[in-house]
Amino acid sequence: MNKIIVLNSRPVGKPQKHDFKFIIDGMPINGDGEVLMKTRFVSVDPYLRGRMSEAKSYIQPFELNQPISSGIIAEVIESNNAKLAKGDFVSGMLQWKEYQVSTGENLLIVNPEVAPLSAYLGILGMTGLTAYLGLTEIGKPKREETLVVSGAAGAVGMVTGQIGKILGCHVVGIAGTDDKCEILKSKFGFDEAINYNTSKNIRKAIAMACPNGVDIYFDNVGGDISDGVLVNINKYARVIICGAISQYNATSMPVGPRLQPLLLKNSALMQGFIIGNYATKFQEAVKILTSWLKEGKLVNHETIVEGFDQIPQAFIDLFDGKNTGKMVVRVG
Amino acid sequence: MNKIIVLNSRPVGKPQKHDFKFIIDGMPINGDGEVLMKTRFVSVDPYLRGRMSEAKSYIQPFELNQPISSGIIAEVIESNNAKLAKGDFVSGMLQWKEYQVSTGENLLIVNPEVAPLSAYLGILGMTGLTAYLGLTEIGKPKREETLVVSGAAGAVGMVTGQIGKILGCHVVGIAGTDDKCEILKSKFGFDEAINYNTSKNIRKAIAMACPNGVDIYFDNVGGDISDGVLVNINKYARVIICGAISQYNATSMPVGPRLQPLLLKNSALMQGFIIGNYATKFQEAVKILTSWLKEGKLVNHETIVEGFDQIPQAFIDLFDGKNTGKMVVRVG
Repeated sequence: MNKIIVLNSRPVGKPQKHDFKFIIDGMPINGDGEVLMKTRFVSVDPYLRGRMSEAKSYIQPFELNQPISSGIIAEVIESNNAKLAKGDFVSGMLQWKEYQVSTGENLLIVNPEVAPLSAYLGILGMTGLTAYLGLTEIGKPKREETLVVSGAAGAVGMVTGQIGKILGCHVVGIAGTDDKCEILKSKFGFDEAINYNTSKNIRKAIAMACPNGVDIYFDNVGGDISDGVLVNINKYARVIICGAISQYNATSMPVGPRLQPLLLKNSALMQGFIIGNYATKFQEAVKILTSWLKEGKLVNHETIVEGFDQIPQAFIDLFDGKNTGKMVVRVG
Repeated sequence: MNKIIVLNSRPVGKPQKHDFKFIIDGMPINGDGEVLMKTRFVSVDPYLRGRMSEAKSYIQPFELNQPISSGIIAEVIESNNAKLAKGDFVSGMLQWKEYQVSTGENLLIVNPEVAPLSAYLGILGMTGLTAYLGLTEIGKPKREETLVVSGAAGAVGMVTGQIGKILGCHVVGIAGTDDKCEILKSKFGFDEAINYNTSKNIRKAIAMACPNGVDIYFDNVGGDISDGVLVNINKYARVIICGAISQYNATSMPVGPRLQPLLLKNSALMQGFIIGNYATKFQEAVKILTSWLKEGKLVNHETIVEGFDQIPQAFIDLFDGKNTGKMVVRVG
């Protein structure tokens, strides 16, 4: 017996539980060259919201009544594939199923002795790579510069800020609760943290926290928070558009202050990216992240939710900021 | 007797004639090491609007009751400076005065035998450099790519589009009259031209004119026109923010569709610049522009207004798009 989660309806606004449907199927059988895998950890990520809409974006939309997929760590439990042995753990873009088969293509063996398995979905996986490559390739941080990170207590944000510190920046994080702000400073070493829910004026709060202005803004959220940051940018500022979680559930075209005059006045750069653009740099980046993690320069933090059945709720909770660090679901 | 134009009041909205004041002063006298110069051509440019406001930008605001300055070609009529002879023509950031003195610092001798004097304010001056360096340094055009230029019949736009053609792009211009659109195609070789005043839907017009989408957008205007272009950008598009003339007279914060989701979806880059950022590349760029002009690959076009007294009106007329090509004032 195999449990599968399919897209039941395309969310309107914030995703709801009824947008997901559980299906019971027979146990899959691995054919020639294939492995049978049991899901161990499932990554839930804000960008999946985009794939649940019909609109084409940088990746294909999910299809209705078909399984959803995301980053998954699975254990090989039967193998007809010479490259993968029973007991191996693999990471890949897999489906929300308790069990599934694969030819092994696009799967990466991960080593639980180097780091906990879930880390390969986060700090040593897509979110860590996103933080590292977005910050270094677009942000090009220099020592003494000021880096502001929004969604700072999220999976990407917490890594971005820590890398900013490693590279010698003054780092200011923006998050949604006092607890998160506390962790940003005490656990991740951010210089300053701003709670956007209690701050009366983000623009002024940023000005206070960034006495030398903002050189780099790593933006995970968009919307009003970003408006408040952007009026504080310096000449030659770099604005990295990594995510816009505040806009993903919008049901009409979001509007805001026009940015062109601000970019013009400051000779500033704003660039969107997806991590796939930098695929040739993954290997090198993972090596660096792994060594920083081992040396204790980089600290990991996860919100682990228990049980396959909780995957939809864990995903929904991202939009209420219920996670600190990477949100992953552990499957028994 | 010397006529001088000073800033009488900071414009609110569109500049008016009463924002400028004519003053009569005595004839200046050139001291040791100085030259006395007679103004021959005065450049009026949209960016001067920014300096008339109090807000600090990338250059200091003009002061009230002080002369306005802009790019000027002047003739040396008396010289106590070994480097400049009577009869030399110079280009520099000078004041709106019929006569003025200078130590010669930051003045460049220009040769009327290589190109008409006014060209040194336009196609071989700041606007030509702005077009060339903005397009090549930020836009990095590749053959077969599609380049859209707004304000295409303006001083920078007409050069940008022509350079796009020289570099092998499919070039689409946006301008405000049918006459301008006609010139874009017949004189400057643009592939397509869109009249934003008669086009019902810029988004669709751009989609029609750019069957392969928009790879590079050289933006001189901002506002609604840019909204219509930006929804048509391709993956890895480069958006060059050179000007935002539609916004310069705004009396409240302009709002529009948020751009971050669009940049994210397309891994697109948007960058503002001012020409001073590329000062080290001026010499090389002028050489290239001059040779293209000589070879006839690049065509010049100016709107020449006659008389010192017409400088304020010529400036005001920029905001009604009364110029085609570079707007300059000839002083008798």
